[in-house]
Amino acid sequence: MGEDQLSAEAGSPIESRSIGGCGSDMANRATPFLESHWYVAAWAGEIGTTPLARTILDRRIVLYRDAAGVVAALADRCPHRSYPLSRGEVKGDRIVCGYHGIEFGRDGRCALVPSTGNAPGALRVRAYPVVEQGPFVWIWMGDPAAPRHDRLVDQPWFTEPGWAHVTGYFPMRAHYLGLHENLMDLSHFPFLHGVAVGKPEHATARPKVTVEGNVVRSVVEHRDVTVMPAYGRRAGFAGPVDRVSESVVPTPAIHLGKVVMREASGRGEAHVRYIVHCPTPETEHSTHYFWAMARSHFIDDEDIDAEMRALGEKAFREDKAALEAIEELVVAERDPAFRERLIASDEAGVQLLRALARMEREDRADAVAVGA
Amino acid sequence: MGEDQLSAEAGSPIESRSIGGCGSDMANRATPFLESHWYVAAWAGEIGTTPLARTILDRRIVLYRDAAGVVAALADRCPHRSYPLSRGEVKGDRIVCGYHGIEFGRDGRCALVPSTGNAPGALRVRAYPVVEQGPFVWIWMGDPAAPRHDRLVDQPWFTEPGWAHVTGYFPMRAHYLGLHENLMDLSHFPFLHGVAVGKPEHATARPKVTVEGNVVRSVVEHRDVTVMPAYGRRAGFAGPVDRVSESVVPTPAIHLGKVVMREASGRGEAHVRYIVHCPTPETEHSTHYFWAMARSHFIDDEDIDAEMRALGEKAFREDKAALEAIEELVVAERDPAFRERLIASDEAGVQLLRALARMEREDRADAVAVGA
Amino acid sequence: MGEDQLSAEAGSPIESRSIGGCGSDMANRATPFLESHWYVAAWAGEIGTTPLARTILDRRIVLYRDAAGVVAALADRCPHRSYPLSRGEVKGDRIVCGYHGIEFGRDGRCALVPSTGNAPGALRVRAYPVVEQGPFVWIWMGDPAAPRHDRLVDQPWFTEPGWAHVTGYFPMRAHYLGLHENLMDLSHFPFLHGVAVGKPEHATARPKVTVEGNVVRSVVEHRDVTVMPAYGRRAGFAGPVDRVSESVVPTPAIHLGKVVMREASGRGEAHVRYIVHCPTPETEHSTHYFWAMARSHFIDDEDIDAEMRALGEKAFREDKAALEAIEELVVAERDPAFRERLIASDEAGVQLLRALARMEREDRADAVAVGA
Ligand code: FES
Ligand code: FES
Ligand code: FES
Repeated sequence: MGEDQLSAEAGSPIESRSIGGCGSDMANRATPFLESHWYVAAWAGEIGTTPLARTILDRRIVLYRDAAGVVAALADRCPHRSYPLSRGEVKGDRIVCGYHGIEFGRDGRCALVPSTGNAPGALRVRAYPVVEQGPFVWIWMGDPAAPRHDRLVDQPWFTEPGWAHVTGYFPMRAHYLGLHENLMDLSHFPFLHGVAVGKPEHATARPKVTVEGNVVRSVVEHRDVTVMPAYGRRAGFAGPVDRVSESVVPTPAIHLGKVVMREASGRGEAHVRYIVHCPTPETEHSTHYFWAMARSHFIDDEDIDAEMRALGEKAFREDKAALEAIEELVVAERDPAFRERLIASDEAGVQLLRALARMEREDRADAVAVGA
Repeated sequence: MGEDQLSAEAGSPIESRSIGGCGSDMANRATPFLESHWYVAAWAGEIGTTPLARTILDRRIVLYRDAAGVVAALADRCPHRSYPLSRGEVKGDRIVCGYHGIEFGRDGRCALVPSTGNAPGALRVRAYPVVEQGPFVWIWMGDPAAPRHDRLVDQPWFTEPGWAHVTGYFPMRAHYLGLHENLMDLSHFPFLHGVAVGKPEHATARPKVTVEGNVVRSVVEHRDVTVMPAYGRRAGFAGPVDRVSESVVPTPAIHLGKVVMREASGRGEAHVRYIVHCPTPETEHSTHYFWAMARSHFIDDEDIDAEMRALGEKAFREDKAALEAIEELVVAERDPAFRERLIASDEAGVQLLRALARMEREDRADAVAVGA
Repeated sequence: MGEDQLSAEAGSPIESRSIGGCGSDMANRATPFLESHWYVAAWAGEIGTTPLARTILDRRIVLYRDAAGVVAALADRCPHRSYPLSRGEVKGDRIVCGYHGIEFGRDGRCALVPSTGNAPGALRVRAYPVVEQGPFVWIWMGDPAAPRHDRLVDQPWFTEPGWAHVTGYFPMRAHYLGLHENLMDLSHFPFLHGVAVGKPEHATARPKVTVEGNVVRSVVEHRDVTVMPAYGRRAGFAGPVDRVSESVVPTPAIHLGKVVMREASGRGEAHVRYIVHCPTPETEHSTHYFWAMARSHFIDDEDIDAEMRALGEKAFREDKAALEAIEELVVAERDPAFRERLIASDEAGVQLLRALARMEREDRADAVAVGA
């Protein structure tokens, strides 16, 4: 067994893992960002004709919407004198550098050098493929010439009728992997989130974890549990419910949670909710934390919108605060040799970090093969 | 003579010393912190059942008092996911991590993993020996298995009846050695502290410096000097006084000053005052500056308390400001090769820095011997 | 052709240049500061008997005026305990260290150690040659024993009668070379400064660039252009003017601009204005930006003073903001291999950066020769 393996024997804390060493079989701080994926760059509503500067996977990027409403993403550094393009202006389908007025198209090619009137090919910035999908704007951080559209995750609950959603965003001063692990772990609920969110059943719930290829899935079923009274009343649940919570991480950019509730008596319809967490690495020490919740019921009820938004704000803010405290400590202690201990409830997180490490290795191997 | 030696010839500025080079015979910025000593971790009154986070000798430590009032000091990093234990809660004699609820005893051993109900031995944090002594809580920063109680300094004037004391604290953004040297030096009084504190006799006073083993002692006697009028009146001193001021540094964590005043005429009793300065290194660039004053007279007089506190606050704040200005400059100039010049009035400070360098070498040699 | 050469073929963007690589034939971030020159240390009015601390070419310096009004510049670090001399006091022609009272003369030699009464030769700080010239105080940053007075630039328009001037200062968080290049470039006017300053003629103006030794000169003539109405009225210009703008960089510390305006009809006198920009490197990432404007007309008109000051403030603040945005980006991206593309309008700037690179190499060779 590798040094980072979690013992098969549930319930016994066993192995340790390196938080910053290379070559661990779990992704950690030493693992390069996984570039060949679609990350949330921004909410669709954030991007307009005023350029938006954002750092993603440690790269400075400018996002804007051209006159036709099409989103563009370019490297936010003019190749002429390194002026941030985000300080310029959008003109038609071009962005105009604010320093000497050089114009670039959505493809990153120079469209005009005003002082000479020409548009040399050497003046070019990297253009990032983008896809708008309901509230999300996804950006492809891998080879710009070969975006893999098969790696986009279809999420009809954010684009099709019959669903309502709310969204939120936190800037988070913490490495993105901590958020992934946090989301795979139910055992922290009662401690970090307190009694409102952390039901007694969470602390000891043992989810069923499966791994298919590099996709980790964790499912936990709770029978006969109580639901928040206000919600229960409105939902028309006469008594306790059965709840199936599923977490799946199809790409490093998405933790997709699904909750299905139905009256334990079997009466009535199932209520479905999706909770999507999209950690977009900003730098080695910070993450854009985008989240969204979609629901199949009460879709025109603004009170429920507000409730869901408040619920997300509160719980995710607590997660953010915890992860930031860890980041601060890890950075201050400067001890990359520190090894963290694993306990049984870490299983889903550990499987996920292993899957991410595999993805990273496979993508790197692919890149080498393509280069060869 | 070594390059860092102070010439025997008083009054002539002579040698220079390295501020950051290794291998100097005086302790400097390149000298590792002296771990095998007791440092002030906190005032006793600061520590309660709410955990207190403090960085000491560059280590993150959590201090708390358990339900029985006993002080504990643990590494402030949960071995599970690096969450600061100081963000958790005290429960009985345990501290409960705020992330997943793992519980630790005062000895740093895991007492419970709530998600599994067991308490694996591998989940353990470093526990630091602590001793409470009057207003002080001392922490042993060396090998936790072998705290040297013979290195605790008995200070009955802070624990016995017949004495009154006041205390103060400054966070100081400066290396701790500068404070030690400052405290050994009287010649800065009139320049840094002005006329109120810096009496003319200070600038040219030549203390008698002795070294016994690694303990440096500096004594200066002033005959027939005036005392602050308010104090003199209250003390019943009819005229000028004789004053003997003694400074001794028994460990890197303590500068112990003692002042004995008696009417020059020989009438009446001697008044004794202790002024204890305890620099606890926080990081390479910052220090916890704890200070306390004890006196044998007017022990129930709150006005004298206030006066002493004000005196300390003012003078020590000026020292702190000077040392911070030096730190800022030294860091900004990034010139570890800079050599400072020594002058005759540095003798006590120089002897102290040599003694600290010896202590550090001896402790290191001991550690090697124990390891062997 | 070298990799950094600008093609002869005007109008075609061609080559690229390294922003941080060594050995480029253009000065860049990797080029050491040019020490053997006079830089503006401060405005004459800034320096009095209260010591002024300033960092110049990454060195901490204290400036003061002694009792006789003579300006002194010393290393701002007491050789005794590294206390900043700037926190001390001026006494006659000496500066007194605020920690232990050691006194230094304008020549940097110790004048008194108060605790011993002597003045040892080893206690000495570096003294920098300074020259006061009208509003400017120049400091020589090269070998203090051999200031080259032939490198001082005579500027009678700031010292002789018949001229009026205004001055301004910006602290700028950007490398100084960016300012030099900005000042050599007219093409950014309409984009960065907008319509008020950036006349249409600027964007496409092609200045005549000449290089004599290491002195780069750029001249642009505009015939029949309009002048700001308020100014034109006051100046008595009946119609459009001819304007000759000349930029010359005699040393790394000075960009000297001269504008001569005369009514296009040939009637009346020529108006002469000098605009002097003095970038004094503070650190690798910051610059003291001193500027001054002198004029030959309306010399007692305070409204014109205010207008010129406002004009400078606005335009130069925009330059500063742009250069700071670039600095922030370049530092954040940490990509010293980034190559910037050159376009035809960069010619003057490119010639200047080449001249500065030559100066630096020549000064370095001189230093070696002197040392040999
Ligand atoms: S920096 Fe963008 S056009 Fe010059
Ligand atoms: S981090 Fe402390 S219990 Fe998990
Ligand atoms: S530090 Fe300047 S006199 Fe001591």
